[in-house]
Amino acid sequence: MESKQFDVVIVGGGIIGSSIAYYLAKENRKVAILEADKIGGKSTSAAAGMLGAHSEYKEFKHLYPFARSSQLLYKQLYEEIRELTAIDFEKRNGGLLKLVYSENEKKELESILSLSSVEWLDNKEARKRVPQLSKEVMGAAYLQEDVHITPLIACNSLSKGAQLFGAEIYEYTRVLAVSKTGMEYSIKTAQGTFLAKNVVIASGVWSNYFFQQLGLSHEIIPVKGECVAAINEGAPLRYAVFHDQFYIVPRNNNELIIGATKKWNDWSENPSLDGLEEVIQKAKKMIPEVGEMKWTRAWAGLRPQTYDGHPYIGEHPEMKGLYFATGHQRNGILLAPATGKMIRDLIIGTPVEKEWLDAFKVERNIFAYGGGK
Amino acid sequence: MESKQFDVVIVGGGIIGSSIAYYLAKENRKVAILEADKIGGKSTSAAAGMLGAHSEYKEFKHLYPFARSSQLLYKQLYEEIRELTAIDFEKRNGGLLKLVYSENEKKELESILSLSSVEWLDNKEARKRVPQLSKEVMGAAYLQEDVHITPLIACNSLSKGAQLFGAEIYEYTRVLAVSKTGMEYSIKTAQGTFLAKNVVIASGVWSNYFFQQLGLSHEIIPVKGECVAAINEGAPLRYAVFHDQFYIVPRNNNELIIGATKKWNDWSENPSLDGLEEVIQKAKKMIPEVGEMKWTRAWAGLRPQTYDGHPYIGEHPEMKGLYFATGHQRNGILLAPATGKMIRDLIIGTPVEKEWLDAFKVERNIFAYGGGK
Amino acid sequence: MESKQFDVVIVGGGIIGSSIAYYLAKENRKVAILEADKIGGKSTSAAAGMLGAHSEYKEFKHLYPFARSSQLLYKQLYEEIRELTAIDFEKRNGGLLKLVYSENEKKELESILSLSSVEWLDNKEARKRVPQLSKEVMGAAYLQEDVHITPLIACNSLSKGAQLFGAEIYEYTRVLAVSKTGMEYSIKTAQGTFLAKNVVIASGVWSNYFFQQLGLSHEIIPVKGECVAAINEGAPLRYAVFHDQFYIVPRNNNELIIGATKKWNDWSENPSLDGLEEVIQKAKKMIPEVGEMKWTRAWAGLRPQTYDGHPYIGEHPEMKGLYFATGHQRNGILLAPATGKMIRDLIIGTPVEKEWLDAFKVERNIFAYGGGK
Amino acid sequence: MESKQFDVVIVGGGIIGSSIAYYLAKENRKVAILEADKIGGKSTSAAAGMLGAHSEYKEFKHLYPFARSSQLLYKQLYEEIRELTAIDFEKRNGGLLKLVYSENEKKELESILSLSSVEWLDNKEARKRVPQLSKEVMGAAYLQEDVHITPLIACNSLSKGAQLFGAEIYEYTRVLAVSKTGMEYSIKTAQGTFLAKNVVIASGVWSNYFFQQLGLSHEIIPVKGECVAAINEGAPLRYAVFHDQFYIVPRNNNELIIGATKKWNDWSENPSLDGLEEVIQKAKKMIPEVGEMKWTRAWAGLRPQTYDGHPYIGEHPEMKGLYFATGHQRNGILLAPATGKMIRDLIIGTPVEKEWLDAFKVERNIFAYGGGK
Repeated sequence: MESKQFDVVIVGGGIIGSSIAYYLAKENRKVAILEADKIGGKSTSAAAGMLGAHSEYKEFKHLYPFARSSQLLYKQLYEEIRELTAIDFEKRNGGLLKLVYSENEKKELESILSLSSVEWLDNKEARKRVPQLSKEVMGAAYLQEDVHITPLIACNSLSKGAQLFGAEIYEYTRVLAVSKTGMEYSIKTAQGTFLAKNVVIASGVWSNYFFQQLGLSHEIIPVKGECVAAINEGAPLRYAVFHDQFYIVPRNNNELIIGATKKWNDWSENPSLDGLEEVIQKAKKMIPEVGEMKWTRAWAGLRPQTYDGHPYIGEHPEMKGLYFATGHQRNGILLAPATGKMIRDLIIGTPVEKEWLDAFKVERNIFAYGGGK
Repeated sequence: MESKQFDVVIVGGGIIGSSIAYYLAKENRKVAILEADKIGGKSTSAAAGMLGAHSEYKEFKHLYPFARSSQLLYKQLYEEIRELTAIDFEKRNGGLLKLVYSENEKKELESILSLSSVEWLDNKEARKRVPQLSKEVMGAAYLQEDVHITPLIACNSLSKGAQLFGAEIYEYTRVLAVSKTGMEYSIKTAQGTFLAKNVVIASGVWSNYFFQQLGLSHEIIPVKGECVAAINEGAPLRYAVFHDQFYIVPRNNNELIIGATKKWNDWSENPSLDGLEEVIQKAKKMIPEVGEMKWTRAWAGLRPQTYDGHPYIGEHPEMKGLYFATGHQRNGILLAPATGKMIRDLIIGTPVEKEWLDAFKVERNIFAYGGGK
Repeated sequence: MESKQFDVVIVGGGIIGSSIAYYLAKENRKVAILEADKIGGKSTSAAAGMLGAHSEYKEFKHLYPFARSSQLLYKQLYEEIRELTAIDFEKRNGGLLKLVYSENEKKELESILSLSSVEWLDNKEARKRVPQLSKEVMGAAYLQEDVHITPLIACNSLSKGAQLFGAEIYEYTRVLAVSKTGMEYSIKTAQGTFLAKNVVIASGVWSNYFFQQLGLSHEIIPVKGECVAAINEGAPLRYAVFHDQFYIVPRNNNELIIGATKKWNDWSENPSLDGLEEVIQKAKKMIPEVGEMKWTRAWAGLRPQTYDGHPYIGEHPEMKGLYFATGHQRNGILLAPATGKMIRDLIIGTPVEKEWLDAFKVERNIFAYGGGK
Repeated sequence: MESKQFDVVIVGGGIIGSSIAYYLAKENRKVAILEADKIGGKSTSAAAGMLGAHSEYKEFKHLYPFARSSQLLYKQLYEEIRELTAIDFEKRNGGLLKLVYSENEKKELESILSLSSVEWLDNKEARKRVPQLSKEVMGAAYLQEDVHITPLIACNSLSKGAQLFGAEIYEYTRVLAVSKTGMEYSIKTAQGTFLAKNVVIASGVWSNYFFQQLGLSHEIIPVKGECVAAINEGAPLRYAVFHDQFYIVPRNNNELIIGATKKWNDWSENPSLDGLEEVIQKAKKMIPEVGEMKWTRAWAGLRPQTYDGHPYIGEHPEMKGLYFATGHQRNGILLAPATGKMIRDLIIGTPVEKEWLDAFKVERNIFAYGGGK
């Protein structure tokens, strides 16, 4: 096979890679996604899809503006994508209740509660919105902007949108090696070699192989998250609920998505029995009647964790034209649009916020940030 | 267990029963659904969900107004249900292309093409809307009002809506016998006996048992429909396509729903290999590249067929307060709202169109109609 | 359709019905099985398949000989069926360890330990056989005769064996009514009417409908059992382990079958989250490392429970030629061969143990037995 | 993590890698399997499991003795493994009927028919063994030695057997790079580095990455095989049947395994609709009633094809201690024992048949063999 030539080759077709492809194809760049499996088939499809710019506020620290900008981009994208592809990626309004069981827990939410879009609900008001809540719930921060979407559908619709702008999608195409000759990158796969002026590594936890192959000692640690789903037999749940890093998220199809554990450095993509037990217990603490609901399925996904909790979004320190967009931890769905836009701007040459450049750059000082958790 | 008392007990929690429950509960009737399996778990979940008032026009004959009224009710319901339950039942606009491969086939569509909302597309225009169409397609009737929904979600959201208005849902509750004492019906189940002033049998192909138990010789024949789904790897399909009673329907999740065969009097709820072969061949005739797409699942559903192709919607000829709402053939999803409203009106005492009463009544003259297929 | 005529029509194609069919067809009786779903598709396929004549000893009381005779019949059947059908129903030798955590528990096993085929293992010996055992295990009764099989395969091979002897199998054929005219029974189904000199109701928890339809007030209560399976990542487990009515059973395919809860009068055929949690906890108490194993699936089955814990195996008190074989509680797999043989003997006229006739007869004095639990 | 040290590290835990591990661990070598996914989770689990030393005779040419030796090793292994692990890997006797529809086809079987264990059956005798055969079948070569097993179970039992002899199994452990320092190999993975005196690459179609990384230009082409399974509703099928490279294989669980297409250089691991259509048509040509049977599942696997149809079993031409065992095409299950034994002998220093060494060696003259097809 003759080598195909592109402006940008994106390695990885999860929601990050698909968003990058969408933003670049829309600017008439000739783009290819090379995906080792199916579009969105790994961590993307395992995610619950909460756009938790506020609920993850503590996590984001001074990078809340980046997360918030991404949350706002979703509002645009939702309409734009539906117009373009006829696909509705199931943005579900209503938002999220971050539950509080004690004064101490309430105190921890102080910074979130100070945000203008966030409202404090006492026990009575919280139960008005979610009558199924445990009686032990003291109250809740109501984050109305933290809506949720169905991640695999959003991912597919972004890649379909990119296709309509001319992008090419290669599934089941595992990249064996990336190398540079002159000004051009050559991306070797079992199906042949692709050539490109720019390459973006967006392979989540599987980016390690490329860090190493490209001379970097960076490392992504997988943090496995285990989930179950159950049929909601009672009244519909209008809001997602959240406590202690666990959540219950309602879907259109009457499933409640319940997750997720955090297992460090566990590469297995199936849930363990311990994981299921933990998830069920945490869910019952929020909504006791969940225990009686009927199980439908269980799964797990691997969150790509960096040493300091911030993603790598930026250029290789020495290889011009080679970018990374990985390490989004538990916020890949939320951060996909802002990441796609930022990579687009870097490649196209549009200015990007200085603060974001610094915080996410690949060669950042590993002592400058406090660590993700 | 003490017997529970209701205004109306509905036997069957598919989309017909759920719609009836919704319309009655909204009018403050105390309603229960008794479902032998799960809500929507049988024929409802097997359906593609096309609201084909026009595409099934020939089938409806002079009853097009009933079908059309139901199609219009869905527009209201969509907003109303989303407001009430926060569930979006995935009404997907765009409509349907009824494909034509010859002048003869075009002639058969004459009556449909005369409708004001239907447009003729020649080959070129049809391929502009659906570039993947086979080159053998001569043109298409474009039925923009024949949108589609996701049936199981619509069914669940109607039953959830009913619950919010006070209805009670009993799943896994098989009805063993219905009998009348004085003015009251007693509905015996393995979980205890329910009492009600009115009973509605909405059990699709499983209604035969009740016809017999209640002294009627009516019979519903199952017409099995076999389906497959595949991942749409190409550009998004914006419209459903239809030919010779087979269809390809796009879903948000990037699946194409492809169906369906017609196997008379086949009670098995799993697809046969012959069925899958037929479905695949018919789909490839419409969109050849479907052959290369990856399979995701296969299933079958049983359509309840009456001797004349019209449903039974009306009262038992001798037992007052006992209603039937069954036999909707391949149009159960489309006709659910109008059926729910009609049964509500019959029970509440609101006038119903004379023509519909006659056409659907249980004791109708079996010689008066021409037969369904 | 013209009515088909049989010597014996069996209503229900689980392992009980299939065994009856096998024993009768082998004696040249013209037999039909009418199954509402698929052969073995309900409770049979949900069972773990332990042939626990000794582990259930307490349960059997003076009826141990019946259970033991059935266990011995399986040895014959295994060879006979493999010869006849080429199917190996995966009888797995090794037997069962009934675990003991305290002196009190050991005392409860006294009667079992007194059996000649049962051996006491102290902690050290138990761990030699099953190194994964919890350190809290004090010892175990080793029941080497209580081997296990794969129930759905055994059921299918019995029905296939019956077919080879001329039996006819009708799946997806729900019986609507059984009635008697003269000396003949007529069994009405949606697919037509069957005629037979003898009828056997072997419908497990779904037998209630027939008790009622045939004038009896007997009742079967479903006791739902919820299960999970996990991949055994460690060394192979050579024995089933059992404690407090929960078990871990190894299969050839490297799955561990873990079950089962007991939920009275719960008709839902799907496991609840509470059920999964309980099962996981009980399994970890026996083999702690089970917690780290990867989940593969979860399911539930309905055990048919009678008021006194004994099955109904015998003739209708007033309708000659009509038999029941149902209510086998958690021991349907074990008791299938002895039940099949006993019904065959009743129909053919071979003498049957007096004690078994009395204990299982349909019209037995409800005060004569102590109740199963 | 400190590096773990082994005598032999095997990259790939399919049936080839598991067999190698078993034979080496049994000789007290300290062995580890590093598997990127689950043991047997890829091509192994997709295979039908026919041990077709004779049916693939033409394919094997003068290497029939290697295939036949492997077939015979399975007889030993079956007993040995069951004794050791208590797992029965479902060797199913009966053998295979290679169907013939014309004199020409019969002529093509001449060499097979000349083998002493192979018998010619005319139409009548063939139908006595398999009454369901198409009437167009002229006769069949009966290959009684070509029995079949359940591949995933055989693979798991070999790896479990290896564990019992001390081997360590690392699932979800993707190898990033293999390199040599002095006399020792270092195998880098995301979970840490392993050290070993010997390395065996047994990664099937995924071996390309290692060929390249280790300086070789060899290439494995995937040949995708698509399959469906159906419930056998009729009499049990006692034999596998085979024609034109398609087969129907009966399993204990009443499924018929039907396959398989040959799609060159297709890396997708899911079946296409075209593939399912082809498989169904081929199966119906052998046993027409298969068309009416109910579908249960569909899947695909990737067969590792070399340029000449022979596997690579031997040492790297320049790196001592580094072995390949890959490229077994459609015969990986059959050849696993002989491959495991041969790699063991190479590592341990036991003599190996000269002819096999030459035929399978990695650096063989690419013009010396005629090509597999």
